[in-house]
Amino acid sequence: MDTQTKAPHVANEFSIDELGLASRNHAMPLEALCYSCTPVGLHYLLIHYDIPQVDATTWRLTVNGAVAHELTLSLDELRALPSVTQQVTLECAGNGRGLLSPHVVSQPWLGEAVGTAEWTGAPLSAVLAQAGIDATAVEALFTGLDRGIDGGEEQDYARSLTLAEATRDEVLLAYAMDGAPLLPQHGFPVRLIVPGWYGMTHVKWLSSVTLLTEPFQGYQQSHAYRVRATSEDAGTPVTRMKPRALMIPPGIPEYQTRIRHLRAGSCTLRGQAWSGWGAITRVEVSDDAGQTWHDASLGDAASAYAWRPWSFAWDAASGAHELCCRATDSAGNVQPLQAAWNTGGYENNSVQRVRVVVA
Amino acid sequence: MDTQTKAPHVANEFSIDELGLASRNHAMPLEALCYSCTPVGLHYLLIHYDIPQVDATTWRLTVNGAVAHELTLSLDELRALPSVTQQVTLECAGNGRGLLSPHVVSQPWLGEAVGTAEWTGAPLSAVLAQAGIDATAVEALFTGLDRGIDGGEEQDYARSLTLAEATRDEVLLAYAMDGAPLLPQHGFPVRLIVPGWYGMTHVKWLSSVTLLTEPFQGYQQSHAYRVRATSEDAGTPVTRMKPRALMIPPGIPEYQTRIRHLRAGSCTLRGQAWSGWGAITRVEVSDDAGQTWHDASLGDAASAYAWRPWSFAWDAASGAHELCCRATDSAGNVQPLQAAWNTGGYENNSVQRVRVVVA
Repeated sequence: MDTQTKAPHVANEFSIDELGLASRNHAMPLEALCYSCTPVGLHYLLIHYDIPQVDATTWRLTVNGAVAHELTLSLDELRALPSVTQQVTLECAGNGRGLLSPHVVSQPWLGEAVGTAEWTGAPLSAVLAQAGIDATAVEALFTGLDRGIDGGEEQDYARSLTLAEATRDEVLLAYAMDGAPLLPQHGFPVRLIVPGWYGMTHVKWLSSVTLLTEPFQGYQQSHAYRVRATSEDAGTPVTRMKPRALMIPPGIPEYQTRIRHLRAGSCTLRGQAWSGWGAITRVEVSDDAGQTWHDASLGDAASAYAWRPWSFAWDAASGAHELCCRATDSAGNVQPLQAAWNTGGYENNSVQRVRVVVA
Repeated sequence: MDTQTKAPHVANEFSIDELGLASRNHAMPLEALCYSCTPVGLHYLLIHYDIPQVDATTWRLTVNGAVAHELTLSLDELRALPSVTQQVTLECAGNGRGLLSPHVVSQPWLGEAVGTAEWTGAPLSAVLAQAGIDATAVEALFTGLDRGIDGGEEQDYARSLTLAEATRDEVLLAYAMDGAPLLPQHGFPVRLIVPGWYGMTHVKWLSSVTLLTEPFQGYQQSHAYRVRATSEDAGTPVTRMKPRALMIPPGIPEYQTRIRHLRAGSCTLRGQAWSGWGAITRVEVSDDAGQTWHDASLGDAASAYAWRPWSFAWDAASGAHELCCRATDSAGNVQPLQAAWNTGGYENNSVQRVRVVVA
């Protein structure tokens, strides 16, 4: 059996506009799963519009809306507040979109839109307490400095959270990533970090936090980032990350197809797994395209919000194999062989498939 | 005239294998042309196989072949040698491949595979002098720790230079990028830097420098990285970067198409231009798809090997426009409207085209 001549798993073709998005918004090469904390520059990126060039000396964060005292904080003032540092895994809500059939046109992720970093910032709850949350407030709206057109509508990028979610201890106004100021592409000078949630929530280049007395109806909240079976469906909002396990592809790659080649014998498969709904409790591995599964060993996650390492001693027999891995979380969610399709191509946590040829 | 409904410039569709390469090997978002030195993580990346995970404490650079004394250098020994720091623009030889017709299958760059960094290292010539170049030596072969299969052949990534090129003052064994140790994806702990040459020459994760008495005939030298009109053609080697100018797309983008929208009036267009064949002597701008051209103002390059900034005061009139820019170097090379096609899709320095709608 020669996997070099097998048809690819997905016959999708991609337009030059989709390729243009993929060229800007890069994935994490899977071999970087070997790092607990993703090296700078390998962490995935999804930038809707352009990366703003922000002058930290004139930047201010406005906290307004249904508050007792409107605040205007400089970067120094934010840095002077008590801080929290925590390792957090971030994943794009569209991860896996490019593998869906029927084809969904947007950033065509193939499953590698993830990364883990150590974020430092001031808890949002402390800043909101300082502003004084009015009893009429129901949501916090986060607006970035990135501006563009989506769905025919000119807009600043903006997303909201309910007050209950926004005031959780782990939600940060982050000004450092891996101990250094944020890079421009990661939201310099300040971004929101909401551990457990998909990436669209972690608003970059943050300019304001506005407490609202009605739920936010902006484009990125009410149109985008909703799971809809059909375009007529009101859908449900995308929120926390579904469980996913990824493996470091073993052996060496063929340049264009990325099909892996390795020698027969003992081979330790390694990877990471995460979920926004609870701790990872199980990772399983298959070497027969998901027909039979074997338990992997789990290591310790660096934090409650970071991916958990796993490994599996695989006896690689000669021939072609399709390796898979799947994660289960403490809430009982199990990664599906094939996730349900939706119009926006969100939350496709179908199991990873890695083609290998053992000689 | 509504550019939203215009046919795209290129009707190319891309396979999932090409998309997989584009997801790993990211381009530089063009708004990052505003930085003289590209922020970490935005510099383009082309990695043929996997990113090796190298232990700097056990890593050694071997200098062997036609030398008087074989050397084995540790990272500390290399860092103890006199060093040079210089700002260098690097570009992939396949930049623009994805825009070619007929379609060429490989990493499908759309023109943004570039970046500028400050590299620090020991001049290669000093290390070769220490080893003692034998009179029979004609080339230096550079071998990396990255291994994979290309053209059906298992190989370590390896490229050679003639001794005349290898011993130029500006050729470095670089161990720092922007003042910090190299990131894994940029060749940690040591890579070759050959200012002026396309990226395939700057061998990453360098493990050996071997002086050869015959020209190297390996895959990446004799098959890949040659400009061939047909597959029967022996072709000519890809060497130095052809001139190219790029502009920061003005205004704000539409998310999927990246078509730009801005208000009528004065608009300063800015960008960078570079060539491996000489200094940039002229940049021109067109707002009518290359029919008429206007001279831009040139700033100062940070080094002889770094891109040169340019700007142009554009009076943006209402309507749809296709903006272009083109560079000329001191050797008299001018960027073409349409570069000649070749089988590998190399050196496509056709002028950039940016679609804008002025309201």
